[in-house]
Amino acid sequence: MGKKPFHTFEDLYRLVSDVLRRHGLSDDQGAIIAQAIVSGERDGCDAHGLYRTLSCVEAMQRGQVDGQAQPEVHDHAPGIVRVDAKRGFSLLAFERGLPMLEQKAHVQGIAVMMINHCYHFSALWFELEKLTERGLVGLAMNPSHSWVAPAGGTNPVFGTNPIAFGWPRPGSPPYIFDFASSAIARGEIELHRRRGERLPAGVAIDARGQATQDPVAAISGAMLTFGGHKGSALATMIELLAGPLIGDLTSAESLDFDQGAQVVPYHGELILALDPEVFLGPAKDAHWSRAEKLFDPVRGKPRPSGRGRIARTA
Amino acid sequence: MGKKPFHTFEDLYRLVSDVLRRHGLSDDQGAIIAQAIVSGERDGCDAHGLYRTLSCVEAMQRGQVDGQAQPEVHDHAPGIVRVDAKRGFSLLAFERGLPMLEQKAHVQGIAVMMINHCYHFSALWFELEKLTERGLVGLAMNPSHSWVAPAGGTNPVFGTNPIAFGWPRPGSPPYIFDFASSAIARGEIELHRRRGERLPAGVAIDARGQATQDPVAAISGAMLTFGGHKGSALATMIELLAGPLIGDLTSAESLDFDQGAQVVPYHGELILALDPEVFLGPAKDAHWSRAEKLFDPVRGKPRPSGRGRIARTA
Repeated sequence: MGKKPFHTFEDLYRLVSDVLRRHGLSDDQGAIIAQAIVSGERDGCDAHGLYRTLSCVEAMQRGQVDGQAQPEVHDHAPGIVRVDAKRGFSLLAFERGLPMLEQKAHVQGIAVMMINHCYHFSALWFELEKLTERGLVGLAMNPSHSWVAPAGGTNPVFGTNPIAFGWPRPGSPPYIFDFASSAIARGEIELHRRRGERLPAGVAIDARGQATQDPVAAISGAMLTFGGHKGSALATMIELLAGPLIGDLTSAESLDFDQGAQVVPYHGELILALDPEVFLGPAKDAHWSRAEKLFDPVRGKPRPSGRGRIARTA
Repeated sequence: MGKKPFHTFEDLYRLVSDVLRRHGLSDDQGAIIAQAIVSGERDGCDAHGLYRTLSCVEAMQRGQVDGQAQPEVHDHAPGIVRVDAKRGFSLLAFERGLPMLEQKAHVQGIAVMMINHCYHFSALWFELEKLTERGLVGLAMNPSHSWVAPAGGTNPVFGTNPIAFGWPRPGSPPYIFDFASSAIARGEIELHRRRGERLPAGVAIDARGQATQDPVAAISGAMLTFGGHKGSALATMIELLAGPLIGDLTSAESLDFDQGAQVVPYHGELILALDPEVFLGPAKDAHWSRAEKLFDPVRGKPRPSGRGRIARTA
């Protein structure tokens, strides 16, 4: 009613960063979070778009996140940047550690950023975009709250534990994936409950460990990982690498730490950066062209002549 | 009939290394392969036990593998060991590069071994055991021959692309996983065909891209990845990291290179090593104890008090 609509992503960015600042986030914390949220909206990723402003504000209102936190960047080892998020959100910690990560990857070939003591609600693809923009190959992962049972188990042990990978493609948008190792997003269960819909098969168990498609039973039971025992193995790796290895909480510990405050998960994050120029030197462009065939296999390579061959051998 | 049975793994080791040497493998190549094969037999991993001696001998008889190859180890960058397998099998290359990988991980915190120009038939867990024995956390992957279609696609592009992870557990066997990113092992399809059995649902498509449970149709079509689009994304990552990033062949290129010779895949391998002592210093033991709760969550941590909580929130 007379309000000006949002015509541009700049408008949206200003709105989001204003809202975040008014709820106690520093200019720096607010700016990078607003940038991530607008990127989600831009790409049609609703779950990490404007909607996330609410989770962020809610987390602030519960009073545990330090919206004024200034992350501290430490040169931990030749191949490791350590960033202490000081109980702020993860994104500013990532942004502050990125120059040192890039520099280390450029010297060593491979380097790690470990972020500690961060509240985390954002998608990892946003960070992978930052790495690929710098020509780096990246891999990132983090635990969350323990809502997911291991394959064959009934107790929730894992978080939704996302893993994300990025590959720069000069002249094209990067190849980036970012997926939860759980079979379904936590929020999807609640959405099914509200709509009175049953869950897909194979995504959850009830409190007695029996398969269920009832969202209410699933919430009091556990979610499952994608891909059975293989997804479960992957979720375990993510717990270990982005938990104890970097001296930070597992998903079970994050949920315990939360103690009913219902804040976003509090834990660490692990980000690997690999510099293709160090791996390949002047041969990089030729090898990168070969990689492009994977993204367009039909044009790059018709059905391989060798298919069917194995049928005739032991 | 009068032959002495094999009473010990030492007997078996001697048999396998004798056979391998008689088929043209150097003492060094034969020794490490025999060690891997006996480990497979020891652990009841039939697919990578004694049976593999045959694939190894067959590959030698086809005349493309250099059984006398001496791998060359290069100090490629502070965080990268490069090993040229010189067209030998992968395992001796790994063994030769391992001391430098360990040393680099110890200095940098994280390091990579890239193996190039290797013939590959062995499981990755054997290498992960070597890393965890040295107290290192490890991650390894490689492409193979392109028999696997991406999610939503019909042309085989990926190999069975295994990924393996290892976590040392002082006083216990390490936590190691090693799985193909394909939904089924290549050999399993052939075994189903021989037994006249149908394949499980969801593991293969026929030449027209339609789901099939007929092993013959699957061989002339393509295998699928585990876990749908997520497994497919993982297979893509493995192709990229252990292919073009290290200047070596993708699975499609490996199959083309083979040109009907029916030798084991020829490609590269990527191995990451992370040194927990560098990540955690004196705090390592405390964090490693926390990690143990993941392996015994019921004893280590009863059902988290927080479960069910999210049902009451948005």
